[in-house]
Amino acid sequence: MATYITVDIGGTQLRAARYTNDSITPDEVIRTPTQSEDGTPLDRLIHLIGQAWPADEPVQAIGVAVPGPTDPYQGIVIEAPNIPGWNDLHLREILEQRFRVPVALGNDANMAALGEWRYGAGSGSHDLLYLTVSTGIGSGVIVRDRLLLGARGLAGELGHLTVMPDGPICGCGQHGHLEALASGTALLRWVKEQLASGVTSTLSGEEHISGLQITQAAQQGDLLAIKALERCGTYVGIALASFLHIFNPSLVVIGGGVSRSGDFLMEPLRFALKSHVMNQAYLEDLQIYPALFGDEVGLVGTLALIRDLYPA
Amino acid sequence: MATYITVDIGGTQLRAARYTNDSITPDEVIRTPTQSEDGTPLDRLIHLIGQAWPADEPVQAIGVAVPGPTDPYQGIVIEAPNIPGWNDLHLREILEQRFRVPVALGNDANMAALGEWRYGAGSGSHDLLYLTVSTGIGSGVIVRDRLLLGARGLAGELGHLTVMPDGPICGCGQHGHLEALASGTALLRWVKEQLASGVTSTLSGEEHISGLQITQAAQQGDLLAIKALERCGTYVGIALASFLHIFNPSLVVIGGGVSRSGDFLMEPLRFALKSHVMNQAYLEDLQIYPALFGDEVGLVGTLALIRDLYPA
Repeated sequence: MATYITVDIGGTQLRAARYTNDSITPDEVIRTPTQSEDGTPLDRLIHLIGQAWPADEPVQAIGVAVPGPTDPYQGIVIEAPNIPGWNDLHLREILEQRFRVPVALGNDANMAALGEWRYGAGSGSHDLLYLTVSTGIGSGVIVRDRLLLGARGLAGELGHLTVMPDGPICGCGQHGHLEALASGTALLRWVKEQLASGVTSTLSGEEHISGLQITQAAQQGDLLAIKALERCGTYVGIALASFLHIFNPSLVVIGGGVSRSGDFLMEPLRFALKSHVMNQAYLEDLQIYPALFGDEVGLVGTLALIRDLYPA
Repeated sequence: MATYITVDIGGTQLRAARYTNDSITPDEVIRTPTQSEDGTPLDRLIHLIGQAWPADEPVQAIGVAVPGPTDPYQGIVIEAPNIPGWNDLHLREILEQRFRVPVALGNDANMAALGEWRYGAGSGSHDLLYLTVSTGIGSGVIVRDRLLLGARGLAGELGHLTVMPDGPICGCGQHGHLEALASGTALLRWVKEQLASGVTSTLSGEEHISGLQITQAAQQGDLLAIKALERCGTYVGIALASFLHIFNPSLVVIGGGVSRSGDFLMEPLRFALKSHVMNQAYLEDLQIYPALFGDEVGLVGTLALIRDLYPA
């Protein structure tokens, strides 16, 4: 029997899961807030892994999905923007010294791509592009059955493609990135701007607007909501045409909260993709699938990583 | 003794080279116009390979660099825009039946990337990005010691990244691609537009302007020429920041005629790259080198391909 522990580090929540044998259904998932008066995030992470530890079995390996640029070769968190003090954190070394088992790190969007490719919507594909459109835009790429990592492990940041050099500011501080135009955050910002400029909508007067509310308003025929999702889908489609030229994948998997807006997002996305691709050969045999996993994708993707690296 | 023949197909010229043993210096290079009243381009290609054939040695393999989208797995030229009738041409099958030796095809920019990586400026790098800025913008990417091909072999078309959705029309028919903004063709078009709108320059009144003339004018302090190269370098730099986020290479190799403009191009390129990259970690340990090879890069890159596929 082989036991693996994976951890998904979020800005608000830490989650640990324990898997045995070949199952992708965890025996147990434990959650705790990332930040609290009770210890640093690192202390809390170590405590959480201890809680997930099996009573009477050895652990084969620990895998950690990190919310930010990570060097998977060196096992270093380069930066986790939502976790104060996590810069150049040698997390693999710390956890290996503490738990005495092999530890592997990966960027959370890369882990999600790995999860969808190995166990989810991308199973069987050799060249896969994974995009998750939620608060930000995360992504990961499988090139000929390998996760694209780059020289330091910083590759696959497709959300930070410049789509409009003078466009709105991105979470990363740069301008006009895909994430700044088509993420959930960008969607909400645009709707608020439109409302502030006097556009009428059933969303007028709402204090806090969510992505779900925008989708519901679109379903009820609200023109502003429909236009907001269309705008988002169009930018993703334009960028996706560039990604097809760059990667020529056989499969694109789209996940994240915004992707649950269904055809309000997907139809303009497909239309923009078709209009912007330079040769129809890129679309022949191309599949576009919704992600299979939800929030658990980081945990299960990290499981794929450590099962590969440290097989039972 | 192993003999390899490689052919570089251009819109105006066909070139064939014969290499022996481990040398990257050809024993012979033969050239002929691609189009003539004397036979179709395919007839002329077959005749040229026959001319390059050694008198008394067997040939290990033939490699062909194709100027357009090519399926290297199936050995099919999907489209060669500058050669009438070359659509869905099963070139590998035709040449293998004619010459009775293994044949491999590759897109010419991919072959160039392979050449620079194996024998040129990129030697020793594991993650390399190759850009050639000349009439168009060609490119190829090495990901962990393998050429990026994609599901059908159409990957690596970095020149067809959308940099400005409403931008000028590209050779491929789409709008605002990097190639439409920063290729030699785009450079000349922009200079002509500026001259037509009344901007004064030492280039005014010239009937035909070349890239070399623009570089020379820049060297003599001509402001329009300096600005044209700055504009070109800036767009390449903005796109390169996106490519770093996508691929995180350790080395970027830049070739092509426009790249010979030196610092007039490279300084704004480096400045735009630094300003647009989202995390300095992408620039740490990144090298940017000029290409080592000139026009022979397609021939020598195709040699790298067939030596790998069909070793002696």
